[in-house]
Amino acid sequence: MPIELDPMLLLGEIDPPQRLLMGPGPINAHPRVLRAMSADLLGQFDPEMTGYMNQVMALYRPIFGTANRWTMLVDGTARAGIEAALVSLVAPGDVVLVVNFGRFGLLLGEILARIGAVVETVEAPWGEIVSLDAIAAGIARCQPKVVATIHGDTSTTMVQPLDGFGALCRAAGALSYVDATATIGGMELAADRWEVDVVSGGLQKCLGGPSGSAPITISDTAAEHITRRRHLEQGIRRPDIADGQGPRIVSNYFDLAMVMDYWSDKRLNHHTEATSMLYAARECARIVLEEGLAARYARHEAAGRAMTAGLRAMGLEIFGEDAHRMINVTGVFVPKDVDGETVRLAMREQFEIEIGTAFGPLEGRIWRIGAMGYNAMKHKVLLTLAALEACLGMQGYSLPPGIAVPAAMRAWDA
Amino acid sequence: MPIELDPMLLLGEIDPPQRLLMGPGPINAHPRVLRAMSADLLGQFDPEMTGYMNQVMALYRPIFGTANRWTMLVDGTARAGIEAALVSLVAPGDVVLVVNFGRFGLLLGEILARIGAVVETVEAPWGEIVSLDAIAAGIARCQPKVVATIHGDTSTTMVQPLDGFGALCRAAGALSYVDATATIGGMELAADRWEVDVVSGGLQKCLGGPSGSAPITISDTAAEHITRRRHLEQGIRRPDIADGQGPRIVSNYFDLAMVMDYWSDKRLNHHTEATSMLYAARECARIVLEEGLAARYARHEAAGRAMTAGLRAMGLEIFGEDAHRMINVTGVFVPKDVDGETVRLAMREQFEIEIGTAFGPLEGRIWRIGAMGYNAMKHKVLLTLAALEACLGMQGYSLPPGIAVPAAMRAWDA
Repeated sequence: MPIELDPMLLLGEIDPPQRLLMGPGPINAHPRVLRAMSADLLGQFDPEMTGYMNQVMALYRPIFGTANRWTMLVDGTARAGIEAALVSLVAPGDVVLVVNFGRFGLLLGEILARIGAVVETVEAPWGEIVSLDAIAAGIARCQPKVVATIHGDTSTTMVQPLDGFGALCRAAGALSYVDATATIGGMELAADRWEVDVVSGGLQKCLGGPSGSAPITISDTAAEHITRRRHLEQGIRRPDIADGQGPRIVSNYFDLAMVMDYWSDKRLNHHTEATSMLYAARECARIVLEEGLAARYARHEAAGRAMTAGLRAMGLEIFGEDAHRMINVTGVFVPKDVDGETVRLAMREQFEIEIGTAFGPLEGRIWRIGAMGYNAMKHKVLLTLAALEACLGMQGYSLPPGIAVPAAMRAWDA
Repeated sequence: MPIELDPMLLLGEIDPPQRLLMGPGPINAHPRVLRAMSADLLGQFDPEMTGYMNQVMALYRPIFGTANRWTMLVDGTARAGIEAALVSLVAPGDVVLVVNFGRFGLLLGEILARIGAVVETVEAPWGEIVSLDAIAAGIARCQPKVVATIHGDTSTTMVQPLDGFGALCRAAGALSYVDATATIGGMELAADRWEVDVVSGGLQKCLGGPSGSAPITISDTAAEHITRRRHLEQGIRRPDIADGQGPRIVSNYFDLAMVMDYWSDKRLNHHTEATSMLYAARECARIVLEEGLAARYARHEAAGRAMTAGLRAMGLEIFGEDAHRMINVTGVFVPKDVDGETVRLAMREQFEIEIGTAFGPLEGRIWRIGAMGYNAMKHKVLLTLAALEACLGMQGYSLPPGIAVPAAMRAWDA
């Protein structure tokens, strides 16, 4: 007999509290995105479904700043997009240079080590970025096959400048990868101008969607490299699709050669596309492009400027070099004699607002406060600052009352 | 300047046609599942969010027929659950026995080969299952560390009997894995009675949800084995969580040691849980348990019985041994002088009903007609049969008209 559940466990209808998510992500999804997910499903090779897949490819090209044919989704969280890129670009034994300036740079090295790559790094202390000169020196030193980095690393709130990055890699015959999870839809991505081969992202930050789908773009050069490693499953071999000669990709799920064949006119069966997440990704992109990329980036910049101004007006110190801070998430030092977690708890319990803690060397030292996507709005920045001012006051942090909000309003319009 | 999109490409609101999906999956999601996904998001370590995660663990235990503590979700499609199980159980060089009786058995071997396992197989022709004796002989022959198989393989519509399977593996000191993607929520899963270590599934078939989340359950023995391979990321190391001594798991995303740490009270940061898909998985499970497992399996059985009776009444031949056919998807031979794809096209274009084609040796020879989850309903079975009868008639297949539906109605109530 099947085990039947204690009816006590049947639990109520989903009914999450209405939290304002002002951490480093995930953030609240745009209501249109949530509604798009309630559309009914389609068969995976239904022409209406493959039509939506093709639309998603078209919609994400401008968001990545590219004309790349291979612009699509990996079915998983942003981390799935990172692993798909790396495992498809890198074969065991390949030398890979990681440009590392925070926790997500460490993650790239971690994934690469598991794949069996020889991992070399050029690094900056947390709170700084890596200069192009240092990257060039790293490339000269280790002659990598692939160079991988992060665009915006939310662990440090730094954004790595990428103009000129891809050219350095190409000049040395290396392919390049950029994780843009934390910036896509909020700061300019320019895959083509950067001359970068693969860029991946996620929906749950500036795109204003749920975690669970990873947009990715692949240059023709990288696509050729990956296709040379194509290895079809025995159960679905076809005479018109040949295996490549390169080393087989270590993962089946993340094999971008097969994922490209699935998204191409070949429609080769691979995973079953996560239809609701594809609907979400499509709606995120529609919203971004309706607003317009320039207007959207300007809105994120205004939100970051206002948040920073409000925090500084309260006498708080901002973390990291001003010249290289992300505009959509701001690190701020927890003041002396204030317990960061107590303030975060009060923010959530009294105001239903979430702000972020930090990782590694910054844990307990800074909060990370985001203003991304649907939450990069003036009133949400002002509400967050007003609530933080109140919570700091309750913790005995003395500050001139009522100063943060006007400072933020002025900065928004600056 | 960012590349702006041609406004012609902004495309309309998501508006898929209302298709009745009677193939081997995906099928139409239950409307309650679609609505659950429209709930707003939460921060990933918000107590309300981790509360929902714990509820999901409780809800899926009876569905898997287990008391396993480690019953949770992998963020990706059903194939992601398969790969997570295999890459976490198997180290390069391990001998793994695959019990293969269709396309998805081939897929297990394919994934294992990429991991670097030594893959041995025991096989049955497509349309049959593998006997316990043959499995025992295979185990004796190759002394595997892991034995892996499929419960219901939709490529052949066969279901592998699993009573006694896990005991054979345990007696030989092997861990066992079962892919139950095509049966979870529609046929009984009994992970504990089968004495199987890891079972994984997907939402998009009998659970009546969208593809994109893979429920998985892990025995304590397998969890210990996997935890011995734990390797924490440098960016999030904690003094209270030690690395294991076993070989590092080849994938970061699919490292179930880290996924367990994320779903445990440790709440170790890994991926960002795909919140909307978690809401969907939770609602799928609530619907299953409200109906009751026994009632749900009986409903699927009635639907399969009715479909089979209707098809046979039309003079069509059912594929595969009756004793071992899945109840939720039925293979049926395309009659002589009928073009299978033309009929499928007419079904879709005239009736908005999808039925499935087939893979490999069965391509063009059989259709696969499902009745799963929200679509395992009498009226949907009857509508499908009536439409198929009409489409076969249009193709010149001569059959006594009006005979399929009454036969199916009688069989439903039998």
